[in-house]
Amino acid sequence: MLEDVLRQVQDGRLSVEDAAKQLATFENLGFAKVDHHRKKRQGFPEIVYGEGKSADQIIGIAKALQAQNHEVLITRISQEKAEQLQNVCPDYRYDPVARLLFWKHADHRESRLKGYIAVVAAGTSDLAVAEEAAVTAEVLGSHVRRFYDVGVAGIHRLLHHAEEIQQAAVSVVVAGMEGALPSVVGGLVAHPVIAVPTSVGYGASFNGLSALLTMLNSCASGISVVNIDNGFGGGYNAALIHQLINKGAAES
Amino acid sequence: MLEDVLRQVQDGRLSVEDAAKQLATFENLGFAKVDHHRKKRQGFPEIVYGEGKSADQIIGIAKALQAQNHEVLITRISQEKAEQLQNVCPDYRYDPVARLLFWKHADHRESRLKGYIAVVAAGTSDLAVAEEAAVTAEVLGSHVRRFYDVGVAGIHRLLHHAEEIQQAAVSVVVAGMEGALPSVVGGLVAHPVIAVPTSVGYGASFNGLSALLTMLNSCASGISVVNIDNGFGGGYNAALIHQLINKGAAES
Amino acid sequence: MLEDVLRQVQDGRLSVEDAAKQLATFENLGFAKVDHHRKKRQGFPEIVYGEGKSADQIIGIAKALQAQNHEVLITRISQEKAEQLQNVCPDYRYDPVARLLFWKHADHRESRLKGYIAVVAAGTSDLAVAEEAAVTAEVLGSHVRRFYDVGVAGIHRLLHHAEEIQQAAVSVVVAGMEGALPSVVGGLVAHPVIAVPTSVGYGASFNGLSALLTMLNSCASGISVVNIDNGFGGGYNAALIHQLINKGAAES
Amino acid sequence: MLEDVLRQVQDGRLSVEDAAKQLATFENLGFAKVDHHRKKRQGFPEIVYGEGKSADQIIGIAKALQAQNHEVLITRISQEKAEQLQNVCPDYRYDPVARLLFWKHADHRESRLKGYIAVVAAGTSDLAVAEEAAVTAEVLGSHVRRFYDVGVAGIHRLLHHAEEIQQAAVSVVVAGMEGALPSVVGGLVAHPVIAVPTSVGYGASFNGLSALLTMLNSCASGISVVNIDNGFGGGYNAALIHQLINKGAAES
Amino acid sequence: MLEDVLRQVQDGRLSVEDAAKQLATFENLGFAKVDHHRKKRQGFPEIVYGEGKSADQIIGIAKALQAQNHEVLITRISQEKAEQLQNVCPDYRYDPVARLLFWKHADHRESRLKGYIAVVAAGTSDLAVAEEAAVTAEVLGSHVRRFYDVGVAGIHRLLHHAEEIQQAAVSVVVAGMEGALPSVVGGLVAHPVIAVPTSVGYGASFNGLSALLTMLNSCASGISVVNIDNGFGGGYNAALIHQLINKGAAES
Amino acid sequence: MLEDVLRQVQDGRLSVEDAAKQLATFENLGFAKVDHHRKKRQGFPEIVYGEGKSADQIIGIAKALQAQNHEVLITRISQEKAEQLQNVCPDYRYDPVARLLFWKHADHRESRLKGYIAVVAAGTSDLAVAEEAAVTAEVLGSHVRRFYDVGVAGIHRLLHHAEEIQQAAVSVVVAGMEGALPSVVGGLVAHPVIAVPTSVGYGASFNGLSALLTMLNSCASGISVVNIDNGFGGGYNAALIHQLINKGAAES
Amino acid sequence: MLEDVLRQVQDGRLSVEDAAKQLATFENLGFAKVDHHRKKRQGFPEIVYGEGKSADQIIGIAKALQAQNHEVLITRISQEKAEQLQNVCPDYRYDPVARLLFWKHADHRESRLKGYIAVVAAGTSDLAVAEEAAVTAEVLGSHVRRFYDVGVAGIHRLLHHAEEIQQAAVSVVVAGMEGALPSVVGGLVAHPVIAVPTSVGYGASFNGLSALLTMLNSCASGISVVNIDNGFGGGYNAALIHQLINKGAAES
Amino acid sequence: MLEDVLRQVQDGRLSVEDAAKQLATFENLGFAKVDHHRKKRQGFPEIVYGEGKSADQIIGIAKALQAQNHEVLITRISQEKAEQLQNVCPDYRYDPVARLLFWKHADHRESRLKGYIAVVAAGTSDLAVAEEAAVTAEVLGSHVRRFYDVGVAGIHRLLHHAEEIQQAAVSVVVAGMEGALPSVVGGLVAHPVIAVPTSVGYGASFNGLSALLTMLNSCASGISVVNIDNGFGGGYNAALIHQLINKGAAES
Repeated sequence: MLEDVLRQVQDGRLSVEDAAKQLATFENLGFAKVDHHRKKRQGFPEIVYGEGKSADQIIGIAKALQAQNHEVLITRISQEKAEQLQNVCPDYRYDPVARLLFWKHADHRESRLKGYIAVVAAGTSDLAVAEEAAVTAEVLGSHVRRFYDVGVAGIHRLLHHAEEIQQAAVSVVVAGMEGALPSVVGGLVAHPVIAVPTSVGYGASFNGLSALLTMLNSCASGISVVNIDNGFGGGYNAALIHQLINKGAAES
Repeated sequence: MLEDVLRQVQDGRLSVEDAAKQLATFENLGFAKVDHHRKKRQGFPEIVYGEGKSADQIIGIAKALQAQNHEVLITRISQEKAEQLQNVCPDYRYDPVARLLFWKHADHRESRLKGYIAVVAAGTSDLAVAEEAAVTAEVLGSHVRRFYDVGVAGIHRLLHHAEEIQQAAVSVVVAGMEGALPSVVGGLVAHPVIAVPTSVGYGASFNGLSALLTMLNSCASGISVVNIDNGFGGGYNAALIHQLINKGAAES
Repeated sequence: MLEDVLRQVQDGRLSVEDAAKQLATFENLGFAKVDHHRKKRQGFPEIVYGEGKSADQIIGIAKALQAQNHEVLITRISQEKAEQLQNVCPDYRYDPVARLLFWKHADHRESRLKGYIAVVAAGTSDLAVAEEAAVTAEVLGSHVRRFYDVGVAGIHRLLHHAEEIQQAAVSVVVAGMEGALPSVVGGLVAHPVIAVPTSVGYGASFNGLSALLTMLNSCASGISVVNIDNGFGGGYNAALIHQLINKGAAES
Repeated sequence: MLEDVLRQVQDGRLSVEDAAKQLATFENLGFAKVDHHRKKRQGFPEIVYGEGKSADQIIGIAKALQAQNHEVLITRISQEKAEQLQNVCPDYRYDPVARLLFWKHADHRESRLKGYIAVVAAGTSDLAVAEEAAVTAEVLGSHVRRFYDVGVAGIHRLLHHAEEIQQAAVSVVVAGMEGALPSVVGGLVAHPVIAVPTSVGYGASFNGLSALLTMLNSCASGISVVNIDNGFGGGYNAALIHQLINKGAAES
Repeated sequence: MLEDVLRQVQDGRLSVEDAAKQLATFENLGFAKVDHHRKKRQGFPEIVYGEGKSADQIIGIAKALQAQNHEVLITRISQEKAEQLQNVCPDYRYDPVARLLFWKHADHRESRLKGYIAVVAAGTSDLAVAEEAAVTAEVLGSHVRRFYDVGVAGIHRLLHHAEEIQQAAVSVVVAGMEGALPSVVGGLVAHPVIAVPTSVGYGASFNGLSALLTMLNSCASGISVVNIDNGFGGGYNAALIHQLINKGAAES
Repeated sequence: MLEDVLRQVQDGRLSVEDAAKQLATFENLGFAKVDHHRKKRQGFPEIVYGEGKSADQIIGIAKALQAQNHEVLITRISQEKAEQLQNVCPDYRYDPVARLLFWKHADHRESRLKGYIAVVAAGTSDLAVAEEAAVTAEVLGSHVRRFYDVGVAGIHRLLHHAEEIQQAAVSVVVAGMEGALPSVVGGLVAHPVIAVPTSVGYGASFNGLSALLTMLNSCASGISVVNIDNGFGGGYNAALIHQLINKGAAES
Repeated sequence: MLEDVLRQVQDGRLSVEDAAKQLATFENLGFAKVDHHRKKRQGFPEIVYGEGKSADQIIGIAKALQAQNHEVLITRISQEKAEQLQNVCPDYRYDPVARLLFWKHADHRESRLKGYIAVVAAGTSDLAVAEEAAVTAEVLGSHVRRFYDVGVAGIHRLLHHAEEIQQAAVSVVVAGMEGALPSVVGGLVAHPVIAVPTSVGYGASFNGLSALLTMLNSCASGISVVNIDNGFGGGYNAALIHQLINKGAAES
Repeated sequence: MLEDVLRQVQDGRLSVEDAAKQLATFENLGFAKVDHHRKKRQGFPEIVYGEGKSADQIIGIAKALQAQNHEVLITRISQEKAEQLQNVCPDYRYDPVARLLFWKHADHRESRLKGYIAVVAAGTSDLAVAEEAAVTAEVLGSHVRRFYDVGVAGIHRLLHHAEEIQQAAVSVVVAGMEGALPSVVGGLVAHPVIAVPTSVGYGASFNGLSALLTMLNSCASGISVVNIDNGFGGGYNAALIHQLINKGAAES
């Protein structure tokens, strides 16, 4: 692309000033365009982190994204602020457990990907983070199956679902307190496990530090970890891998 | 016992001075005697922490204990120092993995307790700590069954032994890295689990802190925790409970 | 049990499909049944962690347990939520200090176990955690004696009760701030000590971390530790040991 | 498979005892067999963590794996111990930088996967960890391109390779000190980034804690993290994803 | 005293039962009486930690102390709770900055000790903790001189008062943020310095941890440290030393 | 100056008492005068930390400063308290984002310094801290250019402004979460970078600790760090350097 | 003293230049002279921290101190380096346990102070730190009584010596592991307790952090804390208080 | 510069291929050239971090720098490795205390900058870090004055040099243990203070963490902090500011 611009300058089809402008925003760095390509190819929207942004700010960003028919996904947004947005954008859906607000073009509401993501959660208290992961992945185009309340202290509950989890394309495993669940799942499956520690627990759980360290130190292979309570990160990573697997299939 | 002494003083059978001496070492506080009773009743020796003590110091303490036919158990003692002691006390046995040196009167070498303690360890690297727990419990009079290399990343290895672990009187569960094993064992058994974190691991295991926090935050009931690498503490607690269960049986 | 099922298949008494179903939920894992056995043998109910569950959810679980005549114990439940439950289940008792809600079948309200558990607490500020331990143990069938406000800074208060604590089957020792009490108790008694650090304190107590580390590093033997403020864990462990000692007595 | 066994029992082709044995190691738990399938399908060997294992132990495990024509990969193994193994197994290769010892069947030495993994490292001091990641991925069947010494303090070095990194299937990004590289790479690419913090640094890097926290808190999406210095984990995760993408392609 | 009791028993002047009772509360342990002696000799009251105690509980304790003409000092008590007490005990004084409530017998309101305690504070934000120290020392019978807002960032403010601080019997030095003041004072004076870190500060002050570590690591001799925000501890230690110095003078 | 005073004493022009007084407040230490010189030479006012001070206290200090025609700058002051001051001092300006209240003499409102300070911020959530830095520098006499929302996860946004940042006299770089921005800026510029970590983030950001460690460990040269959220510190350091550079120019 | 110099200038007895010189080293700051006074009055030498200093450097400082007949005390000095010094200064004594090298003028070798310091240590492993405290206090002129191996896990050992500890002028209490001993001693005595945490312990003792936190959080009054393993600090503080008490006695 | 290239393409003076090559290394990113300009303008060499690099690697880099007549500065290099380099490059000088190896062109050995940098260090143990700062600044072209052993525990030592420190262009203040020195210096001077914490200390200094936190929390303005033991960083920042001040002077 750089050479194209240069050739147009050489041929007089492009003035020096216009070429400089183009190269400054794109050829010099080339990221904005790639960004556009990425969205077209993968259907991945720009994600908006809602915390600390005003409703007005969010509406502005959301409309810009929607104008390009991209999905809109706003994370960590309170019910109250979401309702302000829904007054303006009535076709936005809000999930109060996952605290996500999102919009998808009618054409993209059905997942076109083969296979599914398993979202596995240890306890009912981890539900909000697990749902943030699950709904994020769904908005990004994946089909999700949920396996909740299957913590390691009653290992049979997990094993009961072992086969169904094993057949997923990728797993997101959410756990607080001792955070041992990803290790057990990681030992059962042959696909990547995205581990999400939660701040659920008390005393020496130190707001999720305990679960975080457990997951980082897992002796099972194929596990990687995102930040404490970062359900969005878990869902995003899983959807990204899920999409690449499908893309691999589509390209062959 | 206080009243006995007073009565003897009243009756003139005991001088004021002798009574004062007795009460000073025993009636005032009453612990030395209880200590003796405890050993007689339970066969529990004074344990010697070997680290930082010279061979001569250890020999002195050991001989005093042995003189009363008590078992002798010296923990955290190097092979080299142990051999110095064995030159003087040739009937002492040394376990180089557990780094324990001990002696038992010939009459007490067979466990007279019903049932057994399960010592469960996650990885082969946790062996030294697990053996410190197992041999400690054996020296203190318990029978021990070992279940090693049954970490949660291959949960079937543990489940294969589930029944035998369930039938133990008490379990000591040793694990490093993510330290998740006690949670899983705790969910399988109906007896107390003494969890021993080990400093095995690297990076964010922080010398056992990760495993320690995991175990303290376990969502399984019936688990309590001892210090990092404290295999002795695990074995001692288990043997204490095991003995009390048997004593309960014997007294009824 | 596995062989029974196989034999029935061999004999044609059981179809392949039914056998597969049975083995999938029970023979493969075998835990649900053990769970039932455990409750029958030991009278230990499933414990419900109340925090983060709605009153409706708790009512559902409680009724299921009660239907089997199991005791019901709900921990960390606020007065307000407890009263909602008591409207539906008027025979449930609530302890506002321990924040426990529980129900016991009329036949099981008296402890049938020999001996008692000592619940020892350092300061009046540790009361809530100590009561969580004590009431938990009582609901689980143990008799409890309380020794409160006997912190180490006035050691004579503790020593005054030394003998009565020594005669307990097991001790739960609760302390915040410097958390030194379990070490002193552990040096006085010949039974297991479950140490419970509390988040009581200020400044460098770091929400109970100070007391937790103290207890883990205790130089007294026979001490194991549960999570910060985990009075329930202390009471549960103690009741478990107490019951096993009695069971030992009953079986002989 | 469970139903197969049952049918053989029903037909009398299999005795109850033999069926019980099979189900004990497989049907009860079902993991060993799945393990075998996994290797066949994916070419993923059992990985041997070399630290703390004797040369003899490693030789035993290695021969068992090799007997099934599986690749053999031993991590964290010193040159000295590796040479002991090479005396017995002269066709094993040792990589002294990555501290990996491995063997591949002659038929599998060429990667059959489309695309490549980008291993990106910040500084020359991160080399050992980066090579552990790269060689691990190569042994597991991926093609790898290395981009070393492209730390963020000279951002042009990274940008020079931006396009080639963007075209990879997945990236492993290795960095110590401030650990900022994964954030920058994560913002440039549309594929998963496995971030590996290293313990390189001094002072307040606290043995990799600084880099670890940086990576967990990355504001770029699509990043997940493994343990400090865990190059193997980075390579394994990347190879796993790379293989699944290819498998997706092959299956369609 | 033990021998006295024994002799009375021997002489028949004291019954066994009465002797046992006396020895149980005093001879066995001997602390209660010593406690009484301590108060008589030194005028040091039992201190009541007000936080977490109800107004009624505090009133009960306060009246018991007052009944013996001891000073009453209640720490960490809110204005609201203090006013409840003042309704019952109108001659109690409350200091809202130091959050102390206290009563002294009219005869003891003037300090009879020679010399004074210097309470030195770095910033105006440390005022509450400094006042807790100062008023505590005053209630315990010391004269106090206050040197506030003399932090090290304007060292001349401190040096201006150097001589007056040097002539104190003992110093309490209160500082938050970087907590450097005790080191500078410790280098100027020839008497003990009690350092009190405060939780004043933000960011990396970590609620006083920064100041605490600074003080513990002081390279000046003669400094010892109490807990974060523990103004009471600072004042108590200083008053104790001040009194002993005077007592030394009085006894000679 | 010391010799001047001595000479006046020698000549009888100054009494011993008056000389002693002068030397006590100035010659002995000499800082107050220097302080005045500093302000005259550099136009740097005494800065008032507003948190924890009453409106009345602040008004007193502000008036004293204003009386000498110094600028007045009060940091960390709430809107409510600022309005109380503005009632008394109506020509004071309040910046609600930066939470700064300030006054400048009409003659000093225009910056007379050559060049500008670049204030660079990673995300919109870092705005308050960045503005505290920017407005502080402006009040202290610098011209400031702001570059906001240029975090490393979209590196092209930063590079777009690279040249303008490079031409600044000094940069203040503000970032939370992973805090990587100063490293990238530090690698682009040839002037000092003052890095300001913010407490923006969640989970393992630990209230800014993550960003702080990142910045301290930066492998780019020319970076130094101030406390978490200490925008004032960043702005002050930058203004100080900016002024010295100009002073260098003016003096030559 | 300032006025004296001024008067001499006024009277022409002192030139301006000489007066300026005197005031520069003393009147300006006034500390050197006070330093000299302090030593004369209290017999307190300058203490030399030996670690990181060469033998030659230490010899230089030691000779300067000795030249004024001050005691010489060098801390943290290895046997090897001490022997180098003893070659030059044969009348220096070395204590290999306390790692102290010292010299006292023959006239000052006997303590002239009334009363004694109690140095109390929990375990035999704390011996080195306790001896550093004890010998420091002895060199500084105090008489010391040692109470070793009286840890709280066998509380009767401590209580046996309670009276003798109570009669000390001040106590230094040394403990590692859980560090609970100062709390118990602090509750028994009516004099200041200097608590010295040691790095003795393993696992979660974190090199003395556990003991340090315990001591800072002690609920006994009259306790202050010095740095981990800082036996010198403990001994110095105690000797300082001891001397002031005696000085109080001497002055009255 | 971008437009220059474009114009040359437009005029046919530059081929598209050559222009593309130029823009790829420079116009696209523009950093390499800026780098060169930076060195020419400021005389600042590329700095080589010696730790973890082989002697051969360092020789290669050093020769490349020297070829352009740039100064060569290699940090953290051991005497042994330095001697290997000196065999090849005999005109390199090694400073064994600062552990720096460097070479300067004969024409640049004298500082041409006006003014000096003050390097201030608290204790003799901080010498190595202070020298790393001082020699770094000297190699980079600054004149340096050293003020060592002026820690806050003897504040008069620092004040004795106050004027000379105040007249410096910028200060580097190095301190371990409690790290209080930068706060005191920062309150005395009207120029930037670069604070360098050192890992000197023991116990709760936690390898420099204590000093680091102290410096970050300094209540003096104009202080910024570099990593623990990062003497190089301190010297580099100071030299950078010093040079800009001179450049400001030169340009006007």
